[in-house]
Amino acid sequence: MQIAFLLYDRFTALDAVGPYEVLSRLPGAEVVFTAARPGPVLTDSGSLSLTADLPLSEVTSPDILIVPGGPGTAAQLTDRAVLDWIRAVDANTAWTTSVCSGSLLLAAAGLLQDRRATSHWICLDDLAGLGAVPTDERVVFDGKYATAAGVSAGIDLAFHLAGRLAGDAVAQAIQLVVEYDPQPPYHAGSTATAPAELVAALRANGLAVTAV
Amino acid sequence: MQIAFLLYDRFTALDAVGPYEVLSRLPGAEVVFTAARPGPVLTDSGSLSLTADLPLSEVTSPDILIVPGGPGTAAQLTDRAVLDWIRAVDANTAWTTSVCSGSLLLAAAGLLQDRRATSHWICLDDLAGLGAVPTDERVVFDGKYATAAGVSAGIDLAFHLAGRLAGDAVAQAIQLVVEYDPQPPYHAGSTATAPAELVAALRANGLAVTAV
Repeated sequence: MQIAFLLYDRFTALDAVGPYEVLSRLPGAEVVFTAARPGPVLTDSGSLSLTADLPLSEVTSPDILIVPGGPGTAAQLTDRAVLDWIRAVDANTAWTTSVCSGSLLLAAAGLLQDRRATSHWICLDDLAGLGAVPTDERVVFDGKYATAAGVSAGIDLAFHLAGRLAGDAVAQAIQLVVEYDPQPPYHAGSTATAPAELVAALRANGLAVTAV
Repeated sequence: MQIAFLLYDRFTALDAVGPYEVLSRLPGAEVVFTAARPGPVLTDSGSLSLTADLPLSEVTSPDILIVPGGPGTAAQLTDRAVLDWIRAVDANTAWTTSVCSGSLLLAAAGLLQDRRATSHWICLDDLAGLGAVPTDERVVFDGKYATAAGVSAGIDLAFHLAGRLAGDAVAQAIQLVVEYDPQPPYHAGSTATAPAELVAALRANGLAVTAV
């Protein structure tokens, strides 16, 4: 079972590494990181690179595709080679998935037309503009398409997927191995629970976190 | 504010990337990944490398040290150069922290003697053997030393640390940016909530996840 992660300049590391840490532990998993060119791919912070193992041209039939998001998504939306590759491999995937703004790439490739999907909360209008039916759920399944909300939501998506791929017992074993028993000290992780003025401020300044 | 992540062969990616995704967003954060040699460092799955920016010799006074864990921790426990480096930079850190079995390295460096600390649940006895006072809490602070339980617990540690470094409002802004509103579909993430037979099986086979 090959699981392919698409990397591109200025993607968000946790979007990929969260699901990777879960799905790479599935019995029989073969994980591959792929990008236009193999080698280090710089993340959005400018201070962390993940290595792409293979160029897109050498990853032709993954069983599972995972497309992360990040500030770099916008540039990929008009990259014909990337969108063509997503469409081509999707023809044979068992699951085509995304985290955060990665769903915009699936939609731009034409895969989410009239499908229920999610994205980072700041991207939901853009997702609608690309033909999908946006929802504000954390993980959304529609057919073989699974999309997660922002950044950390990819971890939850991966556990849902692990259960469908290998059964509840295996998914629970992985949960215990990575000790996924989250205990956030704050409750500002969604637009429903965060202070409204915080949502407005981040929306206004493009998610820049500033000192207060 | 320099935040240094120690990388070494066969570390667990999420141990580092979880806290990185939170702390790199702090105003004024300068993140550096460091290892014995700069360049790609292979993680425990054998299929993902993160790039170390600088050799240990060029990271001499980080404000915050983060030591991840993983199957590779054991080999580092007897690496005098790594332990000496941890001890040397600890002399000037504001916070010295670890995720998962990374706490064994802090303890082996002599930094957790008689201090309350945590680790991956399978390592708590080893932590006691190295002089610390193990607890089964998810995040433990004792003086300037902060330790997290296994793998994903580093995310929670990072939010605690973000709040102490930059205040609750900034930490909450980061939580909303990375949409950290966890909704695990299973409840097996700790030894307290997982089925007892699952805990026993993983303990017996060294955390290998097998098909069932």
